[in-house]
Amino acid sequence: MIRITRKYRFSASHRLHAAALADEQNRELYGKCDNPYGHGHNYEIAVSARGPLDPRSGRILDPALLDRLVEAHVLRPFDHRNLNEEIPEFRNSVPTTENLAAEIFRRLETHWKSAFPGNGPSLEKVSIAETPRNIFEVWQIHGQA
Amino acid sequence: MIRITRKYRFSASHRLHAAALADEQNRELYGKCDNPYGHGHNYEIAVSARGPLDPRSGRILDPALLDRLVEAHVLRPFDHRNLNEEIPEFRNSVPTTENLAAEIFRRLETHWKSAFPGNGPSLEKVSIAETPRNIFEVWQIHGQA
Amino acid sequence: MIRITRKYRFSASHRLHAAALADEQNRELYGKCDNPYGHGHNYEIAVSARGPLDPRSGRILDPALLDRLVEAHVLRPFDHRNLNEEIPEFRNSVPTTENLAAEIFRRLETHWKSAFPGNGPSLEKVSIAETPRNIFEVWQIHGQA
Amino acid sequence: MIRITRKYRFSASHRLHAAALADEQNRELYGKCDNPYGHGHNYEIAVSARGPLDPRSGRILDPALLDRLVEAHVLRPFDHRNLNEEIPEFRNSVPTTENLAAEIFRRLETHWKSAFPGNGPSLEKVSIAETPRNIFEVWQIHGQA
Amino acid sequence: MIRITRKYRFSASHRLHAAALADEQNRELYGKCDNPYGHGHNYEIAVSARGPLDPRSGRILDPALLDRLVEAHVLRPFDHRNLNEEIPEFRNSVPTTENLAAEIFRRLETHWKSAFPGNGPSLEKVSIAETPRNIFEVWQIHGQA
Amino acid sequence: MIRITRKYRFSASHRLHAAALADEQNRELYGKCDNPYGHGHNYEIAVSARGPLDPRSGRILDPALLDRLVEAHVLRPFDHRNLNEEIPEFRNSVPTTENLAAEIFRRLETHWKSAFPGNGPSLEKVSIAETPRNIFEVWQIHGQA
Repeated sequence: MIRITRKYRFSASHRLHAAALADEQNRELYGKCDNPYGHGHNYEIAVSARGPLDPRSGRILDPALLDRLVEAHVLRPFDHRNLNEEIPEFRNSVPTTENLAAEIFRRLETHWKSAFPGNGPSLEKVSIAETPRNIFEVWQIHGQA
Repeated sequence: MIRITRKYRFSASHRLHAAALADEQNRELYGKCDNPYGHGHNYEIAVSARGPLDPRSGRILDPALLDRLVEAHVLRPFDHRNLNEEIPEFRNSVPTTENLAAEIFRRLETHWKSAFPGNGPSLEKVSIAETPRNIFEVWQIHGQA
Repeated sequence: MIRITRKYRFSASHRLHAAALADEQNRELYGKCDNPYGHGHNYEIAVSARGPLDPRSGRILDPALLDRLVEAHVLRPFDHRNLNEEIPEFRNSVPTTENLAAEIFRRLETHWKSAFPGNGPSLEKVSIAETPRNIFEVWQIHGQA
Repeated sequence: MIRITRKYRFSASHRLHAAALADEQNRELYGKCDNPYGHGHNYEIAVSARGPLDPRSGRILDPALLDRLVEAHVLRPFDHRNLNEEIPEFRNSVPTTENLAAEIFRRLETHWKSAFPGNGPSLEKVSIAETPRNIFEVWQIHGQA
Repeated sequence: MIRITRKYRFSASHRLHAAALADEQNRELYGKCDNPYGHGHNYEIAVSARGPLDPRSGRILDPALLDRLVEAHVLRPFDHRNLNEEIPEFRNSVPTTENLAAEIFRRLETHWKSAFPGNGPSLEKVSIAETPRNIFEVWQIHGQA
Repeated sequence: MIRITRKYRFSASHRLHAAALADEQNRELYGKCDNPYGHGHNYEIAVSARGPLDPRSGRILDPALLDRLVEAHVLRPFDHRNLNEEIPEFRNSVPTTENLAAEIFRRLETHWKSAFPGNGPSLEKVSIAETPRNIFEVWQIHGQA
């Protein structure tokens, strides 16, 4: 078995603030990330897939197809955006990097089979670095991380 | 002569939009950076100073003093902020990275002499990476870059 | 399930020399790392935890708590130290990076439950890069690496 | 259990072209990687081994032995080479990075026991970055990745 | 004055071999880089321009224009190419990274004024990293490096 | 004119302590770097030379010659060493990174002409990163930095 990981970048702004909590609780929970005017990051995501090697092509997937999938469902909607205001899923949940990683995994998983039909590669993990020193990984429950 | 460069990071959000221009001109000029909800970056700044070597300490400056200067005048006001809304200088100018670099240089230059009095080190350059592939440098007119 | 990894740095010196072995055996085993005057490194550690997502906060742990734990039990005792002379555990064992990684894991594990009580996140892995090209990982026997 | 990972670099050229396919299929499959004159990369490989800690040395393997193994069976034959023309295995298979990673794993596995006899460390994974954004991992079927 | 630097990558293969020299001299001069089958690299180039700040836009140049210039005159002709076979200038000169940097500088300089007419930014420097540890810079004779 | 920069690494330990000063002054001046047991770093040095392009070889210097010079006069004496105890120059001066950079520059300059005789390349700058965020540069008084 072989795993491929491809990395992508986007830049976005967000504010960490839970609507269900009082302002003071938000400040205690999120510190300066609760700043009402928001702040932002260069996010680096890494998408990992694993699969059998196609003996004809010597590859486990066509990287152009993966790039197109990530471009359509992640980069276009998230790059140069305000996550709180422009991503519908973050109207009801806080755009922490944990939730952001889970949302990106969900979007890729939803569209995976139409991009890679048949017994091809499977989506294994989405990793996202909010800064170079703060990294989050989400993976399939039955998969391996 | 010896130069010291120390690097620091902060995260902020901004929107590129010139008040004097029509919306369409802004969109043409700044592209997706004109998104009305803003976006953000992890900025990495590098502050360079040059000076004579103090023979007693074997240093050109006390790095703790430089850290304190940058902390007080750059990191505290800029980190986890919205540059358009929270930095007074960007009420009248667009927070491009060029303007941001110039503003950081100006702030450090203004407070330099009180941090490093006498014939000590001189501020030489401020460099700022908006992303790892997009870097801006500002330096003193009579200095060397 | 989601994993968070946060990175930290410290600088320290060490000498690789096993008291139970003859000098010549030490030289053969450790090469230039056996130099009696010692040498040093910038160590970069990465601490990984996994856990359920708290639906209220959208996080698996409060990063400020993890930072405080690592600061108290790793950075403060190890940073700018001589590992052989100043870390009691290395009086009887050689401060190889394997042993250093295991010792850091042990210290974090010992204090984990008081920092993260209840059914919170669990410590999963400690990784340490002695140089950018030489990396060691230690993890829980029943966990996944 | 502890894992060690050591990184190495080599530079090589290759062309992606499957002999069994028509030219047009090759162009569609491999895009600009099918350029008949070839192109090249700086490959960065990471070799991971896991094993019990030797209580005497405080290590899981002698890094000099691993370096010698990788030097002899990977760096010397692959560095500054044309993979299609100079690596016999790629006369009949396409030197995709998947196949390259598998071939490196196979070579290290073949010679592992003579380098590390007895109950020592086991080869766990070979990872190879074709570019900093495009990474492939190969590991033992019964091992963990 | 402000300097902007933008980074780009391409992958190519080359062989270092001077037609005017005997084979043995070539081997002595270029070592393994003289391998007749060639080898390759991931080249990272950095293009630096300096200029006055446009007070209206807050920028020294439109980054989209620079990207287009580099795409047309550097990335498209050089990426995934064999420098000896596919770049006419290297039919008569050896594609060392020095010559490659000079050729890229020449191409950008030739087309600079049509991309940035008037008193706009001036091309200042082209830097190229053949590997992360081997970097070459070319700049204008009357400029500053 | 073209500049070449090549990077090298070594690991060493040091203690910052000026013999002429009282213990308390040392503690105030150097903070935790004054720890009597010492600490250490992975130092990354970058050596820059500039020179005319040799039209025959297409290079400004033979990189193997530069590597040999740096190996003999910097890496061999400094790598895996205690700078205070094993480098004679630091018996009378404090091994700050400023002094270390100046000493490396001096050593390379002393031996430059025997490595590169005639009108060849000239040594321009030595840069040394004590950590990735703390960088020092030393250059020739009449040269350009």
